[in-house]
Amino acid sequence: MAERIDLNADLGESFGRWQLGDDAGLLPFLTSANIACGFHAGDPATLVRTCSIAVEHSVRIGAQVAYRDLAGFGRRFVDASYEELFADVLYQIGALDGIARSQGGRVAYVKPHGALYNTAVHHETHARAVVDAAIAAGGLPVMGLPGSRLLTFAAAAGLTCYAEAFVDRGYAADGTLVPRSAKGAVITHTLEVCDRATSIAVDHRVRSITGEMVPIEADSLCLHGDTAGAVDLAHAVRDALQAAGVRVAAP
Amino acid sequence: MAERIDLNADLGESFGRWQLGDDAGLLPFLTSANIACGFHAGDPATLVRTCSIAVEHSVRIGAQVAYRDLAGFGRRFVDASYEELFADVLYQIGALDGIARSQGGRVAYVKPHGALYNTAVHHETHARAVVDAAIAAGGLPVMGLPGSRLLTFAAAAGLTCYAEAFVDRGYAADGTLVPRSAKGAVITHTLEVCDRATSIAVDHRVRSITGEMVPIEADSLCLHGDTAGAVDLAHAVRDALQAAGVRVAAP
Amino acid sequence: MAERIDLNADLGESFGRWQLGDDAGLLPFLTSANIACGFHAGDPATLVRTCSIAVEHSVRIGAQVAYRDLAGFGRRFVDASYEELFADVLYQIGALDGIARSQGGRVAYVKPHGALYNTAVHHETHARAVVDAAIAAGGLPVMGLPGSRLLTFAAAAGLTCYAEAFVDRGYAADGTLVPRSAKGAVITHTLEVCDRATSIAVDHRVRSITGEMVPIEADSLCLHGDTAGAVDLAHAVRDALQAAGVRVAAP
Amino acid sequence: MAERIDLNADLGESFGRWQLGDDAGLLPFLTSANIACGFHAGDPATLVRTCSIAVEHSVRIGAQVAYRDLAGFGRRFVDASYEELFADVLYQIGALDGIARSQGGRVAYVKPHGALYNTAVHHETHARAVVDAAIAAGGLPVMGLPGSRLLTFAAAAGLTCYAEAFVDRGYAADGTLVPRSAKGAVITHTLEVCDRATSIAVDHRVRSITGEMVPIEADSLCLHGDTAGAVDLAHAVRDALQAAGVRVAAP
Repeated sequence: MAERIDLNADLGESFGRWQLGDDAGLLPFLTSANIACGFHAGDPATLVRTCSIAVEHSVRIGAQVAYRDLAGFGRRFVDASYEELFADVLYQIGALDGIARSQGGRVAYVKPHGALYNTAVHHETHARAVVDAAIAAGGLPVMGLPGSRLLTFAAAAGLTCYAEAFVDRGYAADGTLVPRSAKGAVITHTLEVCDRATSIAVDHRVRSITGEMVPIEADSLCLHGDTAGAVDLAHAVRDALQAAGVRVAAP
Repeated sequence: MAERIDLNADLGESFGRWQLGDDAGLLPFLTSANIACGFHAGDPATLVRTCSIAVEHSVRIGAQVAYRDLAGFGRRFVDASYEELFADVLYQIGALDGIARSQGGRVAYVKPHGALYNTAVHHETHARAVVDAAIAAGGLPVMGLPGSRLLTFAAAAGLTCYAEAFVDRGYAADGTLVPRSAKGAVITHTLEVCDRATSIAVDHRVRSITGEMVPIEADSLCLHGDTAGAVDLAHAVRDALQAAGVRVAAP
Repeated sequence: MAERIDLNADLGESFGRWQLGDDAGLLPFLTSANIACGFHAGDPATLVRTCSIAVEHSVRIGAQVAYRDLAGFGRRFVDASYEELFADVLYQIGALDGIARSQGGRVAYVKPHGALYNTAVHHETHARAVVDAAIAAGGLPVMGLPGSRLLTFAAAAGLTCYAEAFVDRGYAADGTLVPRSAKGAVITHTLEVCDRATSIAVDHRVRSITGEMVPIEADSLCLHGDTAGAVDLAHAVRDALQAAGVRVAAP
Repeated sequence: MAERIDLNADLGESFGRWQLGDDAGLLPFLTSANIACGFHAGDPATLVRTCSIAVEHSVRIGAQVAYRDLAGFGRRFVDASYEELFADVLYQIGALDGIARSQGGRVAYVKPHGALYNTAVHHETHARAVVDAAIAAGGLPVMGLPGSRLLTFAAAAGLTCYAEAFVDRGYAADGTLVPRSAKGAVITHTLEVCDRATSIAVDHRVRSITGEMVPIEADSLCLHGDTAGAVDLAHAVRDALQAAGVRVAAP
């Protein structure tokens, strides 16, 4: 039986006059689009356009929920209370879902962005707030890091979980991501990224920065959408996966 | 056959540390709550609380959509494009609807707030943007001023329209509202407000500031929720209407 | 020689439609006003009004700088970088100083607000960013908690430091503030607050929640301005200090 | 005697993650930099960097003040009251001045941005608010369109005025700018832009879209900084002016 993998990237991250990423260029190669919801990026007019193109390409729409922090692009931890974060996440999901539905789609899962993504790995209150908002939004699936509090809580609540791997990030021997500040944190060579994508999708493992093969189970592979060669890289990764017999499809 | 009238007020207009209005106090007397959607007021945690109380009292929830202007409380015209305003309104409706549904309710109509309310009386592009967003949100009813472009466009599009009258605002002989800056613009005496409410609901007319009786057809009466005596006034108006044999109920 | 003490409170914390505190009522009793700078509260029109009244009463103006967080009123830690926070604080000081100067005053010191105040007690990067901004703004004095990193760094840099004590907060036997969530954290009885104010100003000590007298050296006493009886309390504290022979004056 | 002309462009218009324009590339060719002040663009860390480079190149810093509208990039009219706009402009000038001074510069003039620029041509209240803020900020010079209410009021108040011409915009025979939506509104050919720059600087006239030579007196020429070839264009215009014997210098 052929392996199947989902390809996701962060989209909808422009804001008014400021453009970021090439949503129209990337969407043909993705199967899931984590679309910003206005709190770290994504003015509503951008969201309408991005949702429209996602629907056109039958790409599944996820709510890329974030801390309320436009100036920091959601990359800074904000010490919100459970009540605030639960409501903020619910608000964002609803806003994007309203726009997605107007274009013939709907929000199909929730993925935290930036600092909220990293915080939800270990911070019980924030992980719980995101999971409870996904429940309150009708029981949406949650995408995140394998082993994170986020996915643990989501699974315990009976939500569908999508474990995610990063094709252009270095892994340590223990399966954690190499911090961005360290050597080997980001992989930019296209062929190497493609090799890692197929290694994860077919063999369920990836080579660590110290050389060991690390086991990794991923439902979805994350591509970064805001770099210069993002569209070409997405194209190459998708081609490589298909050439390796992997079916690229949403879960 | 008894007359029926809806009683609405603007709620959910706190923002973080800043409290405004007494949502819990007013809701028992209302049948429709125009709840802020975060663009002029209404942080998400406030919206969760207000929607929860509205559902508890079986009060219908409306999306009180506004220009993006927290500093101006949505009271300043913002020359948004059609595309921006359409998306902004759709975003706001979806955000509030997501929160309302989590509390067992849903957004049942759309009412523009402040400057957008006044602008949608005559500004074709902005009226059209609000109506198109209501259509895109599934064909929601629209509340507004009788004779406004907003209601004209909404009716032409087949949306349900709720014509609104103001029980504490002065009317000119031609049926328009007396500008807030003019003498007689705001009526504060409780008995007078109650008399006007029953006059509108039962006799379909109201006395103008120059003494003539002006015909007025209203589906809903608007009370102002952010004044000191708002709860008592709402209580008095509801009692007066019921004493006059009017059924106070949502449309 | 008579003791001298400064009386400060947080002002300028309204935002647009939302009013908070009674700046005009409090200012006659204060000698220093920590005026919000727009990042946690304080729209520019409010700042003009508050600065104008402060100048009228010869009250010294301080820049109450904060994390960029209107929705959280600056009460939530935001994990800003040094570069971001330095620039944010400098921006806020300049903005308030421009307004203060237009009214005949000027920013005379810097006091962090809310979460930034608490964070600057121990967080080296954030304490350093505030101090460096005070230096960059021309070498402004800094107000904060005695023993905090903030004041330690400020003193090391040659800035004037104002140590602050809280007349309505409980102190533990080790001189730290009792956390707000604990019993005895907030003192609301006017006479008790007045006693503590004079005890700190005259005897340089305050009774802890466990009964010991704790030594405390304060240049300034902080009153909370956003409570119902704030004006009366400020009046009472000032009267009590003067009755005890203390000169109430800015440093 | 040689002609002298100022060369200005809009800078500091990035915001957090979103980059816009090439400030470091443009500044060597300018003599005046209209730097955003945070209301339409320009996070404080960006402003620090841009002011630092401006000072390094001895480029004069102007406060590019705007309506409070990040989502609209200050390009949408906001119907602010006089009191609000006066305070908003004063706040922005102060904020930028604080940052400029920390880098060894200072705000040397005020230029409204986007919708405020266009509105201040005819809107008396908004023109007055900007001028009064420039006065309140110590009597700063004002840059704007010749014949605008803005410059008329500024001159009447005794402020220094800088009349501005646009080297890459079409002019009608009556000396007004061709609306952006019309044919001939924007001139993109480098040589043509250079010709127009020297024509304005040396001959004090420019060819209109209908062929007539229109008299035009300008103290400063505006280049657009947010286009792809902006740096090359600035370089070419500066070279062309100097080749024509014009001294490129701030007023």
